[in-house]
Amino acid sequence: MTTNEKIAALRAAAKAAGADAVLLMTSDPHCSEYLPDYYNALPWFSGFTGENSTLVVTQEGSALWCDGRFYVQADKQLAGTEIACMHAGSAGVPTVAEYLADHVKAGQTLLLDGSCVPANLAHEYTEVLAKNGAVLKSQDVASAIWDASGERPALPDTPCELLTPAQTGATAGERIAMVRAELAKAGATALAVTGLDCVGWLLNLRARDLPCTPLAVAYALVTSQDCTLFVAPGRLSDADAATLAQSGVAIRGYGDLLDAVSKVDAGEVFLVDEKATNYDLYTALSAYKTVAGADPIFALKGVKNEVELKNIRECHIRDGVAVVRFEMDLEKALAEGRELYETDIEKMLQKRRAEQPGYLEDSFSTIAAWGPNAAMMHYHAEGEVNSKIQRRGFLLVDNGGQYDCGTTDITRTYPVGPLTEDERKYYTWVLQSHIDMARAVFLDYCTGFALDTFARGPVWAHKVNYRCGTGHGVGFISGVHEGPQSLRPNNPVVFKPGMTITDEPGIYETDEVGIRIENELECIDLGDNQYGHWLGFTPLTVVPIDTTPVLVDELSRVQIDWLNAFHKHVYETLAPRLNDEEKTWLANKCAPIGR
Amino acid sequence: MTTNEKIAALRAAAKAAGADAVLLMTSDPHCSEYLPDYYNALPWFSGFTGENSTLVVTQEGSALWCDGRFYVQADKQLAGTEIACMHAGSAGVPTVAEYLADHVKAGQTLLLDGSCVPANLAHEYTEVLAKNGAVLKSQDVASAIWDASGERPALPDTPCELLTPAQTGATAGERIAMVRAELAKAGATALAVTGLDCVGWLLNLRARDLPCTPLAVAYALVTSQDCTLFVAPGRLSDADAATLAQSGVAIRGYGDLLDAVSKVDAGEVFLVDEKATNYDLYTALSAYKTVAGADPIFALKGVKNEVELKNIRECHIRDGVAVVRFEMDLEKALAEGRELYETDIEKMLQKRRAEQPGYLEDSFSTIAAWGPNAAMMHYHAEGEVNSKIQRRGFLLVDNGGQYDCGTTDITRTYPVGPLTEDERKYYTWVLQSHIDMARAVFLDYCTGFALDTFARGPVWAHKVNYRCGTGHGVGFISGVHEGPQSLRPNNPVVFKPGMTITDEPGIYETDEVGIRIENELECIDLGDNQYGHWLGFTPLTVVPIDTTPVLVDELSRVQIDWLNAFHKHVYETLAPRLNDEEKTWLANKCAPIGR
Repeated sequence: MTTNEKIAALRAAAKAAGADAVLLMTSDPHCSEYLPDYYNALPWFSGFTGENSTLVVTQEGSALWCDGRFYVQADKQLAGTEIACMHAGSAGVPTVAEYLADHVKAGQTLLLDGSCVPANLAHEYTEVLAKNGAVLKSQDVASAIWDASGERPALPDTPCELLTPAQTGATAGERIAMVRAELAKAGATALAVTGLDCVGWLLNLRARDLPCTPLAVAYALVTSQDCTLFVAPGRLSDADAATLAQSGVAIRGYGDLLDAVSKVDAGEVFLVDEKATNYDLYTALSAYKTVAGADPIFALKGVKNEVELKNIRECHIRDGVAVVRFEMDLEKALAEGRELYETDIEKMLQKRRAEQPGYLEDSFSTIAAWGPNAAMMHYHAEGEVNSKIQRRGFLLVDNGGQYDCGTTDITRTYPVGPLTEDERKYYTWVLQSHIDMARAVFLDYCTGFALDTFARGPVWAHKVNYRCGTGHGVGFISGVHEGPQSLRPNNPVVFKPGMTITDEPGIYETDEVGIRIENELECIDLGDNQYGHWLGFTPLTVVPIDTTPVLVDELSRVQIDWLNAFHKHVYETLAPRLNDEEKTWLANKCAPIGR
Repeated sequence: MTTNEKIAALRAAAKAAGADAVLLMTSDPHCSEYLPDYYNALPWFSGFTGENSTLVVTQEGSALWCDGRFYVQADKQLAGTEIACMHAGSAGVPTVAEYLADHVKAGQTLLLDGSCVPANLAHEYTEVLAKNGAVLKSQDVASAIWDASGERPALPDTPCELLTPAQTGATAGERIAMVRAELAKAGATALAVTGLDCVGWLLNLRARDLPCTPLAVAYALVTSQDCTLFVAPGRLSDADAATLAQSGVAIRGYGDLLDAVSKVDAGEVFLVDEKATNYDLYTALSAYKTVAGADPIFALKGVKNEVELKNIRECHIRDGVAVVRFEMDLEKALAEGRELYETDIEKMLQKRRAEQPGYLEDSFSTIAAWGPNAAMMHYHAEGEVNSKIQRRGFLLVDNGGQYDCGTTDITRTYPVGPLTEDERKYYTWVLQSHIDMARAVFLDYCTGFALDTFARGPVWAHKVNYRCGTGHGVGFISGVHEGPQSLRPNNPVVFKPGMTITDEPGIYETDEVGIRIENELECIDLGDNQYGHWLGFTPLTVVPIDTTPVLVDELSRVQIDWLNAFHKHVYETLAPRLNDEEKTWLANKCAPIGR
């Protein structure tokens, strides 16, 4: 089927259902950032493969919204189809809601699959349509077309397993009790858990349903008395099912959530977040008394417990050994004059990580970007997009691993030949930003927004900025991007000991250079004094930061002291796991700098 | 009358009015931070002279709430009276609302003067009482008792005058138009202006009704067609009344506001802030359609226009000349071995300020605190509290002036003899904080909370904090504390060019030392580039910062560069107004430092 035929099929299906228009969006029942392919209908229907998109098909036409990252790609991929390409956020371009207001007339009906649209959006569209005398109805007409094509991927079905308390420091029963305590504080008793990372945290459940993110596509339902996991029962071993049963967790089929919700005791009070709950589920929960509020699991899992932290530290040592060996491999390859492409880097890293015990997979697709390519923040070399690494400027490598003891994320920017004076300056400023964030000492009321200033200061002083956060939270054997904490403008989450966070400022000069230096940090308790409760950070990442590009005179004494102490720590931590050649190499990389 | 007799009189007055209890608080109809004495009934009735207090008198007893600053003072001043002293915020101490819930029974009535209580509090108390089947009624029974005593101060009645457009850069008519435009954005058409600083800004009105704050006790009422000033008509000259009339401003008596509100056209929509509107006025406005929101004048007056900025810069030059001459006087007095007390400092400063053209009065009571006294952040030497300035440690002097061209606020901490190593360290760290705030370069989305981090970093690095904001907004020939911008945790106001702000970090070690270094800064536009719109600060204050206590090696090169550039600017700005002896003295104080 061509795209136009698929759109025509959607249009006809709407008509057959007694409706007039259909809306599809890149969203799933779990409000995931990255969807299982099974739920990602929009690319199949439209041909547009980017993220964060909405497609509206009326009887007269069709339109697709993409965000700034995807303007060029969407224009290309929609060319020759009937779909109008809407550059969301550009001047004069209507929002989806405005378009609906213009194109869905009095008496007409818009269909959307309420299980795959967040409730707040469905409510917004309902209101917009109501002003026209039109209505919104939750009905999935896309699946039948997609299924019939034979091209729809299956629902993921990888084996599930439970992490042990030796890994996570808590049984499912203990975590359910933590959630019930938080629900009580909010005046609620029940929670439908839809986020895959939240289900994973609550029940220690992991699988390989998604690339780079070892989670299972599943739901959980917590009430004052019961807890149920919704996942195909055969996916868990009998032993794991028994372990969950000991924590009071029953198992039902993945599709049984709404049925289970409908049978909850009438006295339960649900905590519901309109933005993180799909519309069909929200509608079902509305039969009960509800309290509006964020799923407490987000805040709970943002703070790692002592067992998780111990494991995370170990996982960074393994990752450090792997990355150091990769760096030696890279240096050798460069010294030998071998021809290297960006895509080679990912393989070289995977080889070294695979040697480490407990390595599962990468935590995201490696970004290896030479020279000006690195100015594109989320560049990924693949297929025809794959530069040869030339022997000048920088090679930026952002990568990470999933291990049985944690998840890592690290960026280093390597000089691969002569550097310009500007490249040295930018590298030095980014390093100053990185260090000022890492060495921050602060009181326990600071939000991510307030702390972000520490990192911005050194680059802002030169009227340079990076158009992204300074850092994000990291899951535990889970998503490499997990909040609620982050270091970025407007993040209101107050930092607490046990939170982990990336520290990854950068400078990205279009067509010229991209530099990023990223460690993961652990937020630590620095004790109380008469001024209050002090917090700080300690690096989790143990990989040297190349000092050869640094303009030492730009650094303050405290910045130099931090860097030298970090390198001493890296050497002492990794050396026991390295052979003599590696130790010598590392000692050289960790040599103190000064002026 | 004794305090107990006064309380008994309140109790009897309640009974006579058919009620059971009375509540008084330190608040006025304008929700002022500092009340005109006329409205400050609580100290007369209770004997407690502190700020931010509430008194409740029932038929059975009475209680007064004070905040942490005043626990000791309130205990002393209430000793021997029937009033129970409530340390608000201490463990186990009921809040006012909790006390009312316990002591005002079903069927009973609590009286308060609704013209002197913010509406949000009256609403909170009404709800609490309603749960008991009790009611709140707005009725002033205190004034009759206080008036009859002959001890009540009169309502302030100083001559009013209008600032000229050469001073403020805008006529009343222009400002009324600005307010109407903001009201339209909020979906409103009318505003009752009660804040004295807001009335002053709107109509260019000034008087001397309050110490250190040249404002008039007055209201204004803006509707879509009319604007009325409520102030005793005789207080304005005929010429000024005519000027206002040209801007479409009518004048009515101070007491006529509620009557005028009752006669507003029924189609007007009032913008109302429950927290900044007295209960009686709020009730009167509720007869109209209302929109909840902050008085837009707060945001408007926070950004100074070009004429105001020009005048403010001039005012800081005059103030700089005065303070430099004071510093020379102080040095001479110290060199001559003269015995100096803290209270002498205020007089020495006033003498030098009075020599400057356009000086009106101080902008607040000078804080001159020697040695450990300076650790008390709001220390004020007066009467028996007045230390001799000994010839060691520091003398902290925080002071400012009201001029016909602006309002100033400056703090310097002077070494008056040998310093300890700790004193030098603390001074250096405070200076680093001051400089890092002043030299901040930032994007135009930054709030006061985000910017505050710049100043905290250098002292936090040593696990030291100051328990106050880094800085506050400053009015224009108005209050020395005026928002909405401030540099402090949780301040959500986004900085804009034209805002002025103090930069006054400090270190306060109890019983040991207090250090504060304060300049006023102007927020300036640094232009756009591909990263966005850049802002920064430039110092308004032109007075040298003593460099003799500085541990130069602690400063970074950029901090040294900032300090040397600041001193060059101070010298170049002030020198044309100084005689040769003064110039020589200043050149020495402004000499660059280095290592």
